[in-house]
Amino acid sequence: MSIQVQGKKDREVGDEGTGLIRGAIREMAGYVPGEQPSDAKIVKLNTNENPYPASPRVQEAVARASERLWLYPDPTARALREKVADLLGVDAAGVVVGNGSDEILTLLLSSVVDPGQTVAYPVPTYSLYDSLVAIQGGVAERHPFPEDFSLPESLLRSRARLRIVCNPNSPSGTVVPQSDLERLARTFPDGLLAIDEAYVDFADDSAVSLVGAHSNVVVLRTLSKSYSLAGLRVGFAVTTPALAAEIHKVRDSYNVGRLPQAGALAALEDQAWMRANVDRVRATRARLTRALVDMGYAVLPSQANFVLALRPGRSQAGVAAALREQGVLVRHFAEVPHGLRISIGTDEEVDALVARLRSLRAAGDP
Amino acid sequence: MSIQVQGKKDREVGDEGTGLIRGAIREMAGYVPGEQPSDAKIVKLNTNENPYPASPRVQEAVARASERLWLYPDPTARALREKVADLLGVDAAGVVVGNGSDEILTLLLSSVVDPGQTVAYPVPTYSLYDSLVAIQGGVAERHPFPEDFSLPESLLRSRARLRIVCNPNSPSGTVVPQSDLERLARTFPDGLLAIDEAYVDFADDSAVSLVGAHSNVVVLRTLSKSYSLAGLRVGFAVTTPALAAEIHKVRDSYNVGRLPQAGALAALEDQAWMRANVDRVRATRARLTRALVDMGYAVLPSQANFVLALRPGRSQAGVAAALREQGVLVRHFAEVPHGLRISIGTDEEVDALVARLRSLRAAGDP
Repeated sequence: MSIQVQGKKDREVGDEGTGLIRGAIREMAGYVPGEQPSDAKIVKLNTNENPYPASPRVQEAVARASERLWLYPDPTARALREKVADLLGVDAAGVVVGNGSDEILTLLLSSVVDPGQTVAYPVPTYSLYDSLVAIQGGVAERHPFPEDFSLPESLLRSRARLRIVCNPNSPSGTVVPQSDLERLARTFPDGLLAIDEAYVDFADDSAVSLVGAHSNVVVLRTLSKSYSLAGLRVGFAVTTPALAAEIHKVRDSYNVGRLPQAGALAALEDQAWMRANVDRVRATRARLTRALVDMGYAVLPSQANFVLALRPGRSQAGVAAALREQGVLVRHFAEVPHGLRISIGTDEEVDALVARLRSLRAAGDP
Repeated sequence: MSIQVQGKKDREVGDEGTGLIRGAIREMAGYVPGEQPSDAKIVKLNTNENPYPASPRVQEAVARASERLWLYPDPTARALREKVADLLGVDAAGVVVGNGSDEILTLLLSSVVDPGQTVAYPVPTYSLYDSLVAIQGGVAERHPFPEDFSLPESLLRSRARLRIVCNPNSPSGTVVPQSDLERLARTFPDGLLAIDEAYVDFADDSAVSLVGAHSNVVVLRTLSKSYSLAGLRVGFAVTTPALAAEIHKVRDSYNVGRLPQAGALAALEDQAWMRANVDRVRATRARLTRALVDMGYAVLPSQANFVLALRPGRSQAGVAAALREQGVLVRHFAEVPHGLRISIGTDEEVDALVARLRSLRAAGDP
């Protein structure tokens, strides 16, 4: 089976004219997203999408909004911000909406980090942080997680301009306790603490309450995962109104279009739909975890919509490649050579994955 | 009539925590977009939207795409890039798609301009350039247009890292000849020349052919104006494959969602619809120009979907405010105190505007 890697360049291009590009950009490799094949028959467990569709209200709202596309959208996404504020019990003036939490991260780096300043985060984590620090001309301060993926103590001593904690973390799925996040906020008030809660709806606790208690905290959310809207591109930041007003200055005025504003509002208005899907994903997560443990994988306790399956001492690169040949996509990271990050699909999808893993094991693994 | 200014902060916020923000951002005011009132009864001639709806194919394509929103979009918008390449006779590997040409401008600054480097452009022009230069820590080199809005000769001597020419220019609507753009590209190959063609479908000529002939040219386009899709948020850059590959590195992987990708493709596939709307706008532009000239306004020759009406020696701020009270929005810029920038609406809308302008004049103007 041939799967086209769409995240890469179409072909090799020369370097004519690239002297016009900033040196820092020329030298960086660029973030490479997971594969997004167009073949619907592939079992796609590689980019942490929700296997269930979004609330039907989203389609209705999008259809209505598509009737007036000649007009610019509301530049501040007021209705959406007010809905977020209502749901989370925060101030709408402290909410900033973006094209997925990826854009919110870009806005944060752009508004907070001067060239040469430091950005700290535990690793391994979402590798986009590395790319964004390089683009902004910052310095990455990478704090290795201990084996149990608890908070690196060294991060508590960091004096970085910006600290980022992905919680639940990717690719581990693990969480650090809220009390640790509170310590990070409190022990260095002169640095901003960003808590990336892309996966928080699959977890037990959120750090949103820290925003009211500390003036140096921003919490990032996305609708891509729990609300099944990876294709819509909506995320948001929750912080103080004063910080939000500054972040708005670096945001394109019309960064979020009429369709995503309308679709996101409709999704947030159907909490029951999202919750039902989250419950199904959590149940399947337990089912997949049991099957992987039965096969001898070490599986970290996940509070996300994926698990990290580890086979210490044995690279899983070949297993990921073999699965791909069989039409099953999972994610393998060079930084975690013995692990596979597996998104939680439907029961049928994870059963298909497990069956293939068992066959590969019986055949002696690649 | 009360119209809420949505582009501004909800209310005054304190400055607690803003020491965490970069000094350059704290000190800047932030770009303020034109008003986007939600009241549909307002005659909205202030932000250069097309008064006619987009092709009905857009709604159909958006509805279809809304059925699969749980999946990420194609990270490189391949189908859309190939359609652009086909229409313009360029290489699809040289096309970069973004959330409107505003995001393309942000990506250009981010990939080309190191802090302290210079960005040059004629003024008055699209004021977002000033904001983006400040965000990137660059230095703006502003070249005043002569009275006839021909190319400032000083720009030909500029050694700026990046030169931007908005052509047709806003707020003047004027164009500089293609031969001048070619001279800009040729006389300083060590600097990038960005030609912002947001309004080019309302004009006679495009600079796209310069991309093949020079390795330092990028042409920016948007679907917001001629394709009636300001609410969809799609623009693109056309440049060399080598430069495009570098710009992709600073772009969020999933910057353009499934709905705008699908909607934009459908719009580009219906050229006849766009062309018919452009023809109507150009006819109304001539009608409005005649009426304004009859009233004694000097109107610059416009090749855009707006005109700049000048009344030398008399500030038009009061006229714009009086029109606003009567439910008609036009744009007044502090930088062009004697002018009103008026977007081309329907014949009925521009007639309503002209009638109100005549009444104000009869009453002695504010």
